[in-house]
Amino acid sequence: MTLNEKALKLHEEWNGKLETTSKCQVKSREDLALAYTPGVAEPCKVIANDSEAAYRYTIKANTVAVVSDGSAVLGLGNIGAHAAMPVMEGKCVLFKEFGGVNAFPICLDTQDTEEIIKTIIHIAPAFGGINLEDISAPRCFEIEARLKEQLSIPVFHDDQHGTAIVVLAGIINALKVTNKKKEDCRVVVNGAGSAGIAITKLLLNYGFCHLTLCDKVGILSNQTENLNWMQKEMMEVTNLEGATGTLADALKGTDIFIGVSAPNIVAPEMVSSMNKDSILFAMANPVPEIMPDLAKEAGAKVVGTGRSDFPNQVNNVIAFPGIFKGALEGRATQITEEMKLGAAKAIADLVSNEELNEDYIIPEAFDERVCEVVSNAVKAYIK
Amino acid sequence: MTLNEKALKLHEEWNGKLETTSKCQVKSREDLALAYTPGVAEPCKVIANDSEAAYRYTIKANTVAVVSDGSAVLGLGNIGAHAAMPVMEGKCVLFKEFGGVNAFPICLDTQDTEEIIKTIIHIAPAFGGINLEDISAPRCFEIEARLKEQLSIPVFHDDQHGTAIVVLAGIINALKVTNKKKEDCRVVVNGAGSAGIAITKLLLNYGFCHLTLCDKVGILSNQTENLNWMQKEMMEVTNLEGATGTLADALKGTDIFIGVSAPNIVAPEMVSSMNKDSILFAMANPVPEIMPDLAKEAGAKVVGTGRSDFPNQVNNVIAFPGIFKGALEGRATQITEEMKLGAAKAIADLVSNEELNEDYIIPEAFDERVCEVVSNAVKAYIK
Repeated sequence: MTLNEKALKLHEEWNGKLETTSKCQVKSREDLALAYTPGVAEPCKVIANDSEAAYRYTIKANTVAVVSDGSAVLGLGNIGAHAAMPVMEGKCVLFKEFGGVNAFPICLDTQDTEEIIKTIIHIAPAFGGINLEDISAPRCFEIEARLKEQLSIPVFHDDQHGTAIVVLAGIINALKVTNKKKEDCRVVVNGAGSAGIAITKLLLNYGFCHLTLCDKVGILSNQTENLNWMQKEMMEVTNLEGATGTLADALKGTDIFIGVSAPNIVAPEMVSSMNKDSILFAMANPVPEIMPDLAKEAGAKVVGTGRSDFPNQVNNVIAFPGIFKGALEGRATQITEEMKLGAAKAIADLVSNEELNEDYIIPEAFDERVCEVVSNAVKAYIK
Repeated sequence: MTLNEKALKLHEEWNGKLETTSKCQVKSREDLALAYTPGVAEPCKVIANDSEAAYRYTIKANTVAVVSDGSAVLGLGNIGAHAAMPVMEGKCVLFKEFGGVNAFPICLDTQDTEEIIKTIIHIAPAFGGINLEDISAPRCFEIEARLKEQLSIPVFHDDQHGTAIVVLAGIINALKVTNKKKEDCRVVVNGAGSAGIAITKLLLNYGFCHLTLCDKVGILSNQTENLNWMQKEMMEVTNLEGATGTLADALKGTDIFIGVSAPNIVAPEMVSSMNKDSILFAMANPVPEIMPDLAKEAGAKVVGTGRSDFPNQVNNVIAFPGIFKGALEGRATQITEEMKLGAAKAIADLVSNEELNEDYIIPEAFDERVCEVVSNAVKAYIK
């Protein structure tokens, strides 16, 4: 049986990967009177007078909504709310298993930006945080920004920021391995969607100066037609030279390639055209922009992918459980840039100088220290 | 420590009465690849082609949303979404503990009817059923009716129908104890809100013919001012004689009083003015419309309340877990009148003729047979 066949069979056996479990027993009339009426009126009354008390008496303290409209699910595209459920349930499982954070999947039967925003605001009272997932760009940017404005609980689009945090963690260590300095590095990010743009922003905030965004049309510049509003905004801070051309043109003389795009679009010659000891994060899934062995033969020093069967896996599960654990424990109202940078550095620091090498720049997803250090990094920046 | 003090302290210790638990383990890379990417894409693809497959692969199969806008919570009134959470979490606990049904609390930060309807429709994909809770009348009637029209999963307002089912179960057995016939009984329902109206409708559907609704203003008739649209509708089928007057006037010469109203509003003289062997369901909480001992002294034969410390407790937990268990297992798209009547009869039948007496007309909430018989009654009417 292939992995895919086994996955389908298991999903049928699980018949839902998540369950809701009671933390209190209800075996007697007294139990019932304490957990439900009439006793339950007491915490209700306290919260009615002080909504902050919801964190003391309800699941809001430690529960996240994993919200998707099913518009950009994995590599499957716009498959809709029902079909997105197995992914969102899986995400909830990871929140609990890796971070001890309760999570519930909310798959929305609408792809209208305004309706999505309103719906999430309406259901927010039960939740201590909102994890947006698999919502297509550029809608995802507006939805996140508006929710951050209007809600006082953390809102985090994991496809953007989870990916960006783990990429930055890997880049920090790749710089050490290659003795490159962030100020001097030229970086190409291919794929100007949610992940690519978030990675670009976080790298800029970390201190990279020379970044070029590419997409299917090649290098994005002020001259590129049909940029969406977010891509236009990015033109203020990337490709300041106004370069034009193909991805191959973009890569010449650069140090770092970050791909969140499509399989096999980076040829070995393109890698050879990069500077010495180049760093490639080829994260298209399941087939990367270039296979690691080919990239290395062509001169790359460090190669990361999204796959668990190659070294240096960029896996969001390294970030998001700890991000929300820290945010919830510290009662953060936002996930800030400082928190994301702090989390990336903390993840990078988990790889000791002795362990660090070109094939080990990112800690393992199952490294039990990860969640705690990410959580602490977030808490360190709560004001 | 009083029960209320203990309840508050326990709620703080629980810090949320519910958790989300993984049904699959994630201890290895293979586990991760099966429960999450890349394996999770398989059930997604199947559901994308056939949304019914969501019942095979996701929590939709066995998960209910417990939705409230916090507008009519217990006896506390309009305390809002956050303050309603402990009750909704408690309800979810009961769904799981009594019915094995997963449930998640959705407390809405809006009390606008249209927004509530839209929000519930938007979040429906994750759920196999919608349990509405503590939404004020008459909005609750419209919300439920519109959702039933627009959703293909069962929608059930428990304050209405759960209460009505258990009351009818009790009445069926009270008729046996008192040797009364439904066709001959005159019934007064006091409290023309969600529960009172649902009880009235179900009693009419069961075969009662003489019903009078009362509210704070006394007997409701076509002449009563300021009736809401649902109360007006009820005037087509109740109080066909067009009686007017007070609750005391209404009770003279009647057989059954059902109160979902306010403490101590039924005086012993009013009970004495009823027919011989009268039946009283005095369900105001925590203080009933008349205390059982006073009612009995005044001539009542059977008295039920909402309290667990008196005989004949009308407790919704007898109905709703089994209702949804049956509906989910049988993949019902609606909870129909037949199902409610069938459930009430099944509950009544659990009290054997040998056990039946004036102080035992309704099975215990902890009677383990209850959920199963209710569930089977629902399934018997799925088309």
